[in-house]
Amino acid sequence: MGALRLPSLSLLLSPSRSIRSSSLRLRPPLATTSFSASFSGASVDRDFSTHSVAKEAAPPQSKPSLGQEGSVTPRSVDFNAWYLDVIASAELADYGPVRGTMVIRPYGYAIWEAIQDYLNVKFKETGHSNMYFPQFIPYSFIEKEASHVEGFSPELALVTIGGGKELEEKLVVRPTSETIVNHMFTQWIHSYRDLPLMVNQWANVTRWEMRTKPFVRTLEFLWQEGHTAHATLEEAEKEALQMIDVYKKFSYEEAAIPVIAGRKSRVETFAGADRTYTIEAMMGDRKALQAGTSHNLGQNFSRAFGTQFTDETGQRQHVWQTSWAVSTRFVGGIIMTHGDDAGLMLPPRIAPIQVIIVPIWKAADDRIGVMAAVDSLQNVLKAAGIKVKVDDSEQRTPGWKFNFWEMKGVPLRIEVGPRDVTNRSVVVSRRDIPGKPGKDFGVSMEPSALVDHVKSRLEDIQESLLQRATSFRDSNIVDVVSYAELKEAIAEGKWARGPWSASDAEELKVKEETGATIRCFPFDQPQGQKKCFMTGNPADEVAIFAKSY
Amino acid sequence: MGALRLPSLSLLLSPSRSIRSSSLRLRPPLATTSFSASFSGASVDRDFSTHSVAKEAAPPQSKPSLGQEGSVTPRSVDFNAWYLDVIASAELADYGPVRGTMVIRPYGYAIWEAIQDYLNVKFKETGHSNMYFPQFIPYSFIEKEASHVEGFSPELALVTIGGGKELEEKLVVRPTSETIVNHMFTQWIHSYRDLPLMVNQWANVTRWEMRTKPFVRTLEFLWQEGHTAHATLEEAEKEALQMIDVYKKFSYEEAAIPVIAGRKSRVETFAGADRTYTIEAMMGDRKALQAGTSHNLGQNFSRAFGTQFTDETGQRQHVWQTSWAVSTRFVGGIIMTHGDDAGLMLPPRIAPIQVIIVPIWKAADDRIGVMAAVDSLQNVLKAAGIKVKVDDSEQRTPGWKFNFWEMKGVPLRIEVGPRDVTNRSVVVSRRDIPGKPGKDFGVSMEPSALVDHVKSRLEDIQESLLQRATSFRDSNIVDVVSYAELKEAIAEGKWARGPWSASDAEELKVKEETGATIRCFPFDQPQGQKKCFMTGNPADEVAIFAKSY
Repeated sequence: MGALRLPSLSLLLSPSRSIRSSSLRLRPPLATTSFSASFSGASVDRDFSTHSVAKEAAPPQSKPSLGQEGSVTPRSVDFNAWYLDVIASAELADYGPVRGTMVIRPYGYAIWEAIQDYLNVKFKETGHSNMYFPQFIPYSFIEKEASHVEGFSPELALVTIGGGKELEEKLVVRPTSETIVNHMFTQWIHSYRDLPLMVNQWANVTRWEMRTKPFVRTLEFLWQEGHTAHATLEEAEKEALQMIDVYKKFSYEEAAIPVIAGRKSRVETFAGADRTYTIEAMMGDRKALQAGTSHNLGQNFSRAFGTQFTDETGQRQHVWQTSWAVSTRFVGGIIMTHGDDAGLMLPPRIAPIQVIIVPIWKAADDRIGVMAAVDSLQNVLKAAGIKVKVDDSEQRTPGWKFNFWEMKGVPLRIEVGPRDVTNRSVVVSRRDIPGKPGKDFGVSMEPSALVDHVKSRLEDIQESLLQRATSFRDSNIVDVVSYAELKEAIAEGKWARGPWSASDAEELKVKEETGATIRCFPFDQPQGQKKCFMTGNPADEVAIFAKSY
Repeated sequence: MGALRLPSLSLLLSPSRSIRSSSLRLRPPLATTSFSASFSGASVDRDFSTHSVAKEAAPPQSKPSLGQEGSVTPRSVDFNAWYLDVIASAELADYGPVRGTMVIRPYGYAIWEAIQDYLNVKFKETGHSNMYFPQFIPYSFIEKEASHVEGFSPELALVTIGGGKELEEKLVVRPTSETIVNHMFTQWIHSYRDLPLMVNQWANVTRWEMRTKPFVRTLEFLWQEGHTAHATLEEAEKEALQMIDVYKKFSYEEAAIPVIAGRKSRVETFAGADRTYTIEAMMGDRKALQAGTSHNLGQNFSRAFGTQFTDETGQRQHVWQTSWAVSTRFVGGIIMTHGDDAGLMLPPRIAPIQVIIVPIWKAADDRIGVMAAVDSLQNVLKAAGIKVKVDDSEQRTPGWKFNFWEMKGVPLRIEVGPRDVTNRSVVVSRRDIPGKPGKDFGVSMEPSALVDHVKSRLEDIQESLLQRATSFRDSNIVDVVSYAELKEAIAEGKWARGPWSASDAEELKVKEETGATIRCFPFDQPQGQKKCFMTGNPADEVAIFAKSY
């Protein structure tokens, strides 16, 4: 049972959860399985792999208190505990029974579906077709591309038994599909007329990670992986850049995450790629999250797998390739960019529920009028294409519901009470601005006025989330001109940006000494002459250094 | 390398392919990897597992002739070779490198996407949410439900090594998810207020099948699996019936497959279910295909996993459950229901391309006028929501294109030549009716007239495919009153329908002696008193017997 995580008896609530219990509002109950194992105020590593690796080395048990009084750990107190609490309380995900695996619950999956819906359209618009490659890859395939095997072999899951028999060749459960893709491309590509070949798949992948964290790094995760083959290096480069740009646009416009797009250093380049482009996002704790990558694979895989085509002059050539991916990790990025002490905060464009309507009544007499108004509001908003839900459960108080839907990050709340029905108006509250400043009172129930108001507020929130995240990001990036300045910035938890032309060895030294890595050489580069902050030599580019997930 | 299938040098074209080479039309080239290994007219078992199992026991090689002259094996000559040829030539799928695995190519995947799009909406309308469960299941889970382990243990793929280390407990790559679902449901369900719990996932599953066939039975396949938990048996039963009805409606209305819905016999019931409902489709060779199933799981898994809830009276009860699934096998069912010697034939409602436009010109002068007309037609049809594609490649003749898009099963073809441009009219050809009777000449290019014509023809084709399949099905089901009659019907390749109340042992005897199994006790039952054709005892129901995939 060593690979298993037992049920969560040992996952206790932290005393810090009660910090907000003095709040006047009744808090929603926490999900009974909490990701946080924080205990007695001690800063336990909450990496979710540790529970099983340590064979349930349960902390001394204080009485679990899962219930109405529970609240999430404040973000400022313990960012990681907050993250795990939000995931549990907003019902985004849960642990799977196998160490490091995650069950994506309906609300978390709906965010992933929103990501899929947007990207799937963009992929098709840019000429890609979906398809599906098998997940079992012969072990020998992985060995064909030298740096690929070096990068991936430590984290492979291997199937060795099938149908009750030991297999002659072990099968790799795909950690990524470049090898099997090339095996197939070699059979499909004959001449320049077969190029470009541009495909994508939505799939699960497995990487035997030792330190896992829900959404951010799990043993199995969901992603899309695009794979393309081209006749020239230039076309492949253009494609790799185009796809990182698709990701960047998605991040800004839909997820309201102001990622920095750029090129990875040699050290950080994908195992098997010539160049890796990345979008790097600053989380609420100022750590960097690599939120998507696009690789120019050059001819590395086509040479390893003999993927050739006959060009227009009759010559045999190896194809030039790209691959690019975004995964369920992005959901973690959304949580850690926008969330606050009250829970999740979702950008309207990817929120599964954009508007929650809470009916309020005391006297039973009022119920009919309120519910009639609520039904009509819901229909009006639905007809306008707004994702709306009514919480009409009678077991919970309005205050409990307010908190619950704030925890779930729903952008707008509409409250409807008997007086609102009389006045033909409602109160509309923004999730992103607490208290009175976030409320619009007396919003007319008249359909077109209401729809206009809601749509415009949703746009405001979308914009406001992006602006807030951008300000936060910009105020936490420090321009450095010396290694000492970099050390200081990193020690303060910030990102450091400075000219860099030093060696791979020096890059690794920075990592060892500060914990920071080069996140990217951003596409946006300052003008003028630059000197490497490490060596004093001329530098072509600035790099961004940061600690990362 | 025993588990691998080498590239397809040994997959030769059958001499029977040349049967249609006398056709006046130039045939489209076959995909270079053919599923058919038919050879020298000998009836080789084309089960696609055999190539690798037999370690590429290559037939003596005649010169491969993959090219313009190639054609698919006629359906009447060899149904299985025809099926594999169509899959290769229409570019629906290809072999994966691991025995029994399949690569779903873009055109095949687009059919699966059409199935997904329809069902996904229906699942949500009926109150289900999508989510995702991990694919690795602790081996001990599988052992918890007695009949489940008996049914599935022979076909499990096991991960025994992760991250370079032997695992303490083997992990099962999910063959289905009831066990892990119940493990999670047990954590989420506390009281009757948590019920019903209704979820679905779109996922890959693995079953170590020995005899595989593209789409129909592959080592890994894609499917959706719905899982629900209810407070009462009645609710679970209603849900199981509701979902088989969703599948039935999809089959009739979208896929134009007149399935017969009913209940499985005890012998054929899912491992772990109390009752299994099924939709059974008759393929072009009159074999039955189980195209979707819905299980009433009773309390089997909830008892094995302790999935309990507190009911309204405060009593602890085990939940009642269902699960239901449709897989990529359905794509195989579509191919084998509607296809003919010219290739695939797709019902318009699930066709990735509904209309193919082929421009025709000889003189270069004509090109501009024809292409302008074609562009305008394409825009008009697109704007009307019709899935249209223009084949304007200059490397192929119109005749080649006609054949190619017939092979791909596109329901309608529009030909546009210089005279059509002058006359402001086009020729519209139906895929389902060959030659002149299937052509409409002089169809006006005027947008609204054209759109009306195309829409109405697509509806005609949809209806005609269903009618044709229904007639075929009905003319191949024989009502039997004795075992001798059943034997005769089965020997003729037909389905036999007759009253049945005999034992499981007798059911197995029928299978041994005739190769036929009970496909279902259809929901539609004849009136009146019945006597079991095997025993002469009273029988409540008729059963349908058939050979099956």
